[in-house]
Amino acid sequence: MEERLEKQLAFALEIDKEKSVFRQTHLSGHGRYENDAEHAWHMAIMAYLLREYANEKVDIGKVMLMCLIHDIVEIDAGDTYAYDAESLKTQKEREDAAKERIYSLLPEDQKAELTALFDEFEEYCTPEAKFAHAMDNLQPVLLNNSNDGQDWKEHSVTSHTIYGRQNKTRLGSEQLFEVIDQIIQDNIRKGNLPE
Amino acid sequence: MEERLEKQLAFALEIDKEKSVFRQTHLSGHGRYENDAEHAWHMAIMAYLLREYANEKVDIGKVMLMCLIHDIVEIDAGDTYAYDAESLKTQKEREDAAKERIYSLLPEDQKAELTALFDEFEEYCTPEAKFAHAMDNLQPVLLNNSNDGQDWKEHSVTSHTIYGRQNKTRLGSEQLFEVIDQIIQDNIRKGNLPE
Repeated sequence: MEERLEKQLAFALEIDKEKSVFRQTHLSGHGRYENDAEHAWHMAIMAYLLREYANEKVDIGKVMLMCLIHDIVEIDAGDTYAYDAESLKTQKEREDAAKERIYSLLPEDQKAELTALFDEFEEYCTPEAKFAHAMDNLQPVLLNNSNDGQDWKEHSVTSHTIYGRQNKTRLGSEQLFEVIDQIIQDNIRKGNLPE
Repeated sequence: MEERLEKQLAFALEIDKEKSVFRQTHLSGHGRYENDAEHAWHMAIMAYLLREYANEKVDIGKVMLMCLIHDIVEIDAGDTYAYDAESLKTQKEREDAAKERIYSLLPEDQKAELTALFDEFEEYCTPEAKFAHAMDNLQPVLLNNSNDGQDWKEHSVTSHTIYGRQNKTRLGSEQLFEVIDQIIQDNIRKGNLPE
């Protein structure tokens, strides 16, 4: 087998490990914890279906790919919970090392392409990155809302903390931020979220 | 919230259930059974990275979306193991009913678009459908090969049966069929697969 294809297949096998990186979100129906791979799958489909709500015109294929790969670094770096201040401090360093190791399995051109796409996501500047982040923020809120705020309760998260993160959702989509806002307000009323 | 967005979010929540549909394939490292959502995620990334091996030029965004949605019907219809002759007989009927129920959660235009895409995948005729199927076939072979043919052994599958299915992989990619052929031959030599 030629070296290029061999490298691509080695990468394909390596990312299988993302299915064993678990998040702090429970599946709907008060299910088990969600893993990174299925979260990314969910985000990519949502991005496609909800693209009409992006603030700016987006290259939707690029958004989807961004969604699909954005958590690959967590194979080494682990999941960093959005509201865990301590882990957030070391997140960048851990993820940079992971990015270098894992994407180096690919041929040079594909390593360059995917690391650039990951960096673009992290930099939160382009329309695609902003919309992909909106999906990353909206998807767990949908699940958590369907579970009566179970994850927020377990982590003693307040609406203030959530707004801190979710305010950036509006950079990608004002309309989807409104959905999130409505869900947060609903959950405050229901006593699932302290203010 | 306007009705269109409400329907889109209801669909987004519904497909969360795909994460609880388990396949007969084990994750690498002799892990647990794989679920449909993470399998679809894996296929979509592989499609993007391996698109240069497609026999015909493909619209890769379309292939990726096809990969992502191709198993949604299994939320109702369940996973049909590729080498289970009995279940294969009723598969179409079960999946048609599922398709109607689940995609009807979406606004009409998106229901029409996604069911057409699913039908295109099933019909196995366009370059995109053929290449998406090549991913559907290659992905479990990579995992199974990494696990010394564990899944084939558990189901007493023979190389003859596998070739029956995998011969269609060459419709999407002659080069990736060669990879699969090499893996099958390797596993026959190692005693993981009877001929």
